[in-house]
Amino acid sequence: MHEPLPDAALDQLFREARTYQWFDGREVTDSQLAAIWDLMKMGPTSMNQLPARIVWCKSDEAKARLAGHAFEGNVEKIKQAPVCAIIAMDEEFHEHLPRFAPHMDNPKAAFAGEEKRAARKTSAFRNGTLQGGYFIMAARALGLDCGPMSGFDNEAVDADFFADEPAWKSNFICSVGYGDPEKVFPRAPRPSFEDFNRLL
Amino acid sequence: MHEPLPDAALDQLFREARTYQWFDGREVTDSQLAAIWDLMKMGPTSMNQLPARIVWCKSDEAKARLAGHAFEGNVEKIKQAPVCAIIAMDEEFHEHLPRFAPHMDNPKAAFAGEEKRAARKTSAFRNGTLQGGYFIMAARALGLDCGPMSGFDNEAVDADFFADEPAWKSNFICSVGYGDPEKVFPRAPRPSFEDFNRLL
Repeated sequence: MHEPLPDAALDQLFREARTYQWFDGREVTDSQLAAIWDLMKMGPTSMNQLPARIVWCKSDEAKARLAGHAFEGNVEKIKQAPVCAIIAMDEEFHEHLPRFAPHMDNPKAAFAGEEKRAARKTSAFRNGTLQGGYFIMAARALGLDCGPMSGFDNEAVDADFFADEPAWKSNFICSVGYGDPEKVFPRAPRPSFEDFNRLL
Repeated sequence: MHEPLPDAALDQLFREARTYQWFDGREVTDSQLAAIWDLMKMGPTSMNQLPARIVWCKSDEAKARLAGHAFEGNVEKIKQAPVCAIIAMDEEFHEHLPRFAPHMDNPKAAFAGEEKRAARKTSAFRNGTLQGGYFIMAARALGLDCGPMSGFDNEAVDADFFADEPAWKSNFICSVGYGDPEKVFPRAPRPSFEDFNRLL
């Protein structure tokens, strides 16, 4: 620890990694999906809330079902990806806190009750999305490429996939596979440190 | 690309990385802070929105100012960290889209106007938080440790630090430094794949 990773690793994670919407046809195995989870779950969340929930649409049937709720431009991208994950968050994550925050005295209390609903929602969104960031980084660390997408009907996905878990809410979706370098766009510009940072 | 990173890198990023609230006293240089930004800015955001804005509180004065808005348990953690970053998001990020999404025809239109305010807010929160996840991973990739915190008064921080940028909203704060291994808690439990994943 305490040393930067080699340049090749920084390139794979950040500098040369790209968003891919089209993939080269190679399969992604179930054990690779579990490996993404086993890395991403180690990332920090507030109080170890761990609100992320994932549905991996891998069968043609599941991908078609998800694609049915996507904006037109994303339909074929979802159907042709090896896997497309629904990254969701559990707005009742606090029910699991006694298990995940055993060091705390009555951790559920901080988020229990109707008057804490808005705080739960915000916290699930913040921490579930952080886990979404870890998901992308974990997939890249494992040599895979990602195609995150927001262009779909969240409420329709929730009604279709989470009828049995009404507190689970879709956040974004993300294809996973081996990206096709022939079908990637040129890299868009990025802001300099001076653009959006202040050092006090 | 397309190969998993070596185990030592996966350990540094995920498996052995820990949240640190107390640091060993070593300085973090301004160029290390810029290096975090230069990695994290490469991570994907929807339409290349890049809503994250960062205020790095490094001087004793800036850390005391931030600590003044923190919950009691976080005050000393902030003051004693080498740097504590306010990770914020610009809810008027669409003003910059012509620069960052030059491949799109009139990208501002998708988020312009009063009737798009709620969509901007949601999108800034989602994509700004994804960038917060990239921030933590970038710092770890550079050999640094992070101590992310939600326990502070967001509105008070915004009023104090963003009076000149009313569309910037604090999301979470994150200390950065070299963690003190003597002062870290035992790792809390994590969920298995079977707990929170579905494979369809």
